[in-house]
Amino acid sequence: MRATMIYGAGDVRLENVPDAHIKESTDAVIRITHASICGSDLWPYRGYGEYPDNGRPMGHEAIGVVEAIGTDVHHIKVGDVVAMPFAFSDGTCVHCLEGVHTSCVHGGFFGNPEVGGAQAEALRIPQADGTLVPLPGGRDKALMPSLLTLTDVMATGHHAAVTARVSPGKIVAVVGDGAVGLCGVIAARRLGAEEIIIMGRHPGRIALAKEFGATNVVSERDDAAIEHVRELTGGYGAHAVLECVGTDSSMQTALHIARPGGAIGRVGAPHGVNIPAADPTFYSNLTISGGPAPVRAYIESLIPDVMEGKIQPGRVFDRVISLNDIADGYRAMDQREAIKVMIEF
Amino acid sequence: MRATMIYGAGDVRLENVPDAHIKESTDAVIRITHASICGSDLWPYRGYGEYPDNGRPMGHEAIGVVEAIGTDVHHIKVGDVVAMPFAFSDGTCVHCLEGVHTSCVHGGFFGNPEVGGAQAEALRIPQADGTLVPLPGGRDKALMPSLLTLTDVMATGHHAAVTARVSPGKIVAVVGDGAVGLCGVIAARRLGAEEIIIMGRHPGRIALAKEFGATNVVSERDDAAIEHVRELTGGYGAHAVLECVGTDSSMQTALHIARPGGAIGRVGAPHGVNIPAADPTFYSNLTISGGPAPVRAYIESLIPDVMEGKIQPGRVFDRVISLNDIADGYRAMDQREAIKVMIEF
Repeated sequence: MRATMIYGAGDVRLENVPDAHIKESTDAVIRITHASICGSDLWPYRGYGEYPDNGRPMGHEAIGVVEAIGTDVHHIKVGDVVAMPFAFSDGTCVHCLEGVHTSCVHGGFFGNPEVGGAQAEALRIPQADGTLVPLPGGRDKALMPSLLTLTDVMATGHHAAVTARVSPGKIVAVVGDGAVGLCGVIAARRLGAEEIIIMGRHPGRIALAKEFGATNVVSERDDAAIEHVRELTGGYGAHAVLECVGTDSSMQTALHIARPGGAIGRVGAPHGVNIPAADPTFYSNLTISGGPAPVRAYIESLIPDVMEGKIQPGRVFDRVISLNDIADGYRAMDQREAIKVMIEF
Repeated sequence: MRATMIYGAGDVRLENVPDAHIKESTDAVIRITHASICGSDLWPYRGYGEYPDNGRPMGHEAIGVVEAIGTDVHHIKVGDVVAMPFAFSDGTCVHCLEGVHTSCVHGGFFGNPEVGGAQAEALRIPQADGTLVPLPGGRDKALMPSLLTLTDVMATGHHAAVTARVSPGKIVAVVGDGAVGLCGVIAARRLGAEEIIIMGRHPGRIALAKEFGATNVVSERDDAAIEHVRELTGGYGAHAVLECVGTDSSMQTALHIARPGGAIGRVGAPHGVNIPAADPTFYSNLTISGGPAPVRAYIESLIPDVMEGKIQPGRVFDRVISLNDIADGYRAMDQREAIKVMIEF
């Protein structure tokens, strides 16, 4: 089968690899129908991370059709259309029961030599019963992009909003106008935010953020951005800040636009981030929360909103490619030609 | 009047200073009846912080009797017995209304040249209407120590528990067996914790922690302490960690004994603390919260529990001195001869 591999910065290749197959009795194999490129895939594309000699399989967001199941898989059956969260999890351990599926004791992440990646024709799914989510309306083509976002980006935006404690009446700031930030806007609105400030400067993304519910735009950077958010919030800052980037600059901005007692929900994998221990974090009673989104904890509550058309996070996909064009998909996202790329099989 | 001043590490002096008097129309002056030495007073005593040429007035925990009020004070009257939270606040600004009185736009802290300190015969109280809390049963001598703790240490332990999200059924770890940690145990039990692990090694303090509700003791340090907490929690860690020290060692311990998805409520003013941005904070979805306790937000809900004898945080005072002996009081706390020292006038 064909699978996407990365060998170094900018070096994405579509290669022939052995077919995905059942290894453990709790596995399933899915035939991928829709996958996508994640903002986090750009970190290795830009030279951050490790590159195994035989390449690193890429991709962790997908919808597919179950092709085979192990003998201990009981809740998923061959032929099911399923969503695959970016982490696999058993659904039964203490951490899963507490809603932290990304820390499952039998869990792990897709997109590495051990488990394989989803930018491929097929994929082995460990802990299939716990991991996979059947999609009842999963053959409605129009819904596919939005359902696909629930495997990562929309659930991640939701996690940012939840961990930043967005609730009705709150003033929310979203740092980052990438696909996660845009989904953060959707999530903040869905949770009842009164004002949503999107921080970014790409015209097309900002326009989409407004359609998703952003009420204000801050296009400055760093100190000027902090000043502008303060102006928009009566000098007090935002109650909830969704940090959807993961750089030190974005984190410092997030910390300084939060009002005393406010919360920062961070979902951008941190790269070179420094969290000051005293000021403003401690002395302003800030709460810093977030991490890899426990997609599996959220997805069942988000599916109905997609099915009913209440949210349309699939609009973050502004380019659709075939697997053949995967390398160009990475290039387009890296150069910000595309917000987010979907791969149709 | 006499007031406590610090001039440098270990250099605490009782001095004659000008009498406290009304400066602003929103001020009151209280005659102090009970004050105490705070663990945070030991930072300047141990050489951390700034020492103005004319000395720094010390003390920020007190009960007193209102002696004078400014013309704009309407809710506090001369003769009231009042508790004085360690921060003053107007009670009406956005931050106060949101429960973050330590960030009041007209607020500040006691124990500095601008405002004066509470280890003195009298003290000017800015924003008296917002700051002072009348104590209806405030002339019952037996209750005084516990009521006094509500001005800082007990409210601080409560803040640690609240920001660490203690709730019924949770496993809680308290880092630090000082007076704040001990009050953290009281707070955790009061909020319904199922297990409370106290981390410390001073026999008298540990004994008191057990009386307050601690169910387990971890007396190791650093890695051995982390290992022991893991053993006690099925390998998973604590849901809620109360970080009641403020050193880098205590913070690293706190971060590594929290289970995925857990929360750290930190109330020890951070000194040299490093908060790692990625592991375990981000990747384990930890929440880091806390800061200076908004005493004023909590005190009215804690007073009834003291009045009814449900909690007895005043037991952290194991030494009572007169103001004349203030320097020895500092010495006793610094050398851990005393958990916490009360000054009776």
